[in-house]
Amino acid sequence: MNDAAQTPDFSAGEVGLVRFEDFHSNNPLVFDSGASIPQFTLRYETYGRLNKTRDNAILVCHALSGDHHCAGVHTFEDRKPGWWNNIIGPGKPIDTNRFFVVCSNCIGGCQGSTGPSSVDPLTGQAYHMNFPEITIRDMVRAQGALIFEHLGIEKLACVVGGSMGGMQALQWGIDFPDKVERVLALATTARQNAQAIAFNEVGRTAIMQDPDWNEGDYERSHGPAVGLSVARMMAHITYLSDAGLQRKFGKNRFEVAKYLHYQGRSFVNRFDANTYIYFTRALDRFDLYGQGGGELSQAFEPMQARSLIVGFTSDWLFPPEQNREIAYALLKAGKNATYAEIEMDYGHDSFLVSAPELYELVRAFLK
Amino acid sequence: MNDAAQTPDFSAGEVGLVRFEDFHSNNPLVFDSGASIPQFTLRYETYGRLNKTRDNAILVCHALSGDHHCAGVHTFEDRKPGWWNNIIGPGKPIDTNRFFVVCSNCIGGCQGSTGPSSVDPLTGQAYHMNFPEITIRDMVRAQGALIFEHLGIEKLACVVGGSMGGMQALQWGIDFPDKVERVLALATTARQNAQAIAFNEVGRTAIMQDPDWNEGDYERSHGPAVGLSVARMMAHITYLSDAGLQRKFGKNRFEVAKYLHYQGRSFVNRFDANTYIYFTRALDRFDLYGQGGGELSQAFEPMQARSLIVGFTSDWLFPPEQNREIAYALLKAGKNATYAEIEMDYGHDSFLVSAPELYELVRAFLK
Repeated sequence: MNDAAQTPDFSAGEVGLVRFEDFHSNNPLVFDSGASIPQFTLRYETYGRLNKTRDNAILVCHALSGDHHCAGVHTFEDRKPGWWNNIIGPGKPIDTNRFFVVCSNCIGGCQGSTGPSSVDPLTGQAYHMNFPEITIRDMVRAQGALIFEHLGIEKLACVVGGSMGGMQALQWGIDFPDKVERVLALATTARQNAQAIAFNEVGRTAIMQDPDWNEGDYERSHGPAVGLSVARMMAHITYLSDAGLQRKFGKNRFEVAKYLHYQGRSFVNRFDANTYIYFTRALDRFDLYGQGGGELSQAFEPMQARSLIVGFTSDWLFPPEQNREIAYALLKAGKNATYAEIEMDYGHDSFLVSAPELYELVRAFLK
Repeated sequence: MNDAAQTPDFSAGEVGLVRFEDFHSNNPLVFDSGASIPQFTLRYETYGRLNKTRDNAILVCHALSGDHHCAGVHTFEDRKPGWWNNIIGPGKPIDTNRFFVVCSNCIGGCQGSTGPSSVDPLTGQAYHMNFPEITIRDMVRAQGALIFEHLGIEKLACVVGGSMGGMQALQWGIDFPDKVERVLALATTARQNAQAIAFNEVGRTAIMQDPDWNEGDYERSHGPAVGLSVARMMAHITYLSDAGLQRKFGKNRFEVAKYLHYQGRSFVNRFDANTYIYFTRALDRFDLYGQGGGELSQAFEPMQARSLIVGFTSDWLFPPEQNREIAYALLKAGKNATYAEIEMDYGHDSFLVSAPELYELVRAFLK
């Protein structure tokens, strides 16, 4: 997801070695579609300590290709720390000395949480494309069970995320108004526009036309690798910016091809094609305008949280305007909201990159 | 290529029924790579009449997915006229009452000109991927044979084109300085940047990983349809703009999926996957900076033609800046050049759409 080099640093200031845990819910999960699954698992990680009053928890929500591993390393040999390691840790903007940070792999995911590649206990077979349709709201509902039932947290100090994670953060503020103190949404949108839907449709088409997709019925080790890598290569371009690519490759502009192939290959090794289909459909369906009966500010009516919305100048997937309109609608609804726009040339992925300006904003917002 | 509806109009003002012709050259064509083919064909169309002094010819150069059929219809039942019918015709901005308009399918093409799907007379087999590598300069060289040797034109009144056609127009001005009176280049670039190369690489990957591609060795009727349609769907998004898609689909944003699938299917029916690979590689290799030894204005040194460069505000594939820098370099080289920027929301495809402002510019430039 992130092309900025992140080398692990085991000095003070790092969460260091971490391990995931699994929350097994024996209660069914009912989806927006009306379908349900009888039980489910969410894989998650936590960093820092939950205080006695249980009011210092921050939920981090991941983006399309992310997972629960957002900080620290799994072994000392790990060359790559979690995807948001630059911002999460002791003394960092999301300070694990102060906060108890939770991040779960979304429902429908492929990194330990129940999703299309999991076995349906009712049939003994993998769900594949029989897994219920997922919405952003469904992701939030499943996370709610983890936070409230399993971790016993009554109110989150903050829900934070970028891109698909930002959608979840906003939805958290709407769906659990009295359980969320702050919402921090970055590089996101209130509704997928036609261009974003178009790119996702091409990605899904590449996957679903790969003969190895087989209507979604494949072994994880023999999935539609060609289709998934093409989908990823294309999507990866939309996460960057022309200026960023110029900076990265300069005169060696043909190197971008190798770089994309590498991105495609490594994605296939860690991601499931059916989850890609389910998650992109959830993105495409996300529509806070619809939730507000056509009026975005209406969707935010219930929200009580303070919010900070952050757009990035070079993001052309969810451009600044789309972030700005979220903040405007929040203000129109009478909410305590702030909008910040950060000038960075990393495109959509800017939110994942070390940036002093972003760090200061996050620190101030969490004070 | 163009999503703007173009319905044929058989009233005065249309070139009406047209037919293609084939120019067969028995001279070899030597490519920039040093490779050659012993003979070649260019399919072309002409509209209007060549005057006695043979100085009223305009060469129209087509873009990646275009061909020689740029105006008129082939039968009265034809529902779709040539790709630039809106601007070419009697009394239209490219006025066939005044000008003799020539447009040829580029060398390497798949619509009648010699290309990868043509038979190599030396082997009796289709060239497939044994066709020589193509550059924009090679396209221009082959067109030169058509214009000078076959049509007996000594000097072109104008060479005009958008996108890949704009690259050819610029190259014409450089390679045949005393044979070109005017160069009109729209929505183009002096060098493909990393983002454009990246999109092309994903398209080629989709094609080349399709098992039906078979290293390029396939029957035209059994080509890599899946890969080619995915490539086209993705590329088509880059020809439009977010604002244009909003306008087109509005609240029915999910319709964009159907629209793209239609684009993918219809492209597969008319285009050859190997030509797509060769043409996109020619695009990626195009580099007037390189031709000028790193200095764009140096590349334009030989040029004698007057030029008009036109950028479109919503074009994010070859954005206004990239068109502007062509005009600046021309001016720096002491050439008679003008830059115009037109505000339209059709994205890269804006140059194909009816637009009064563009029409006025073209009329004035050709006066």
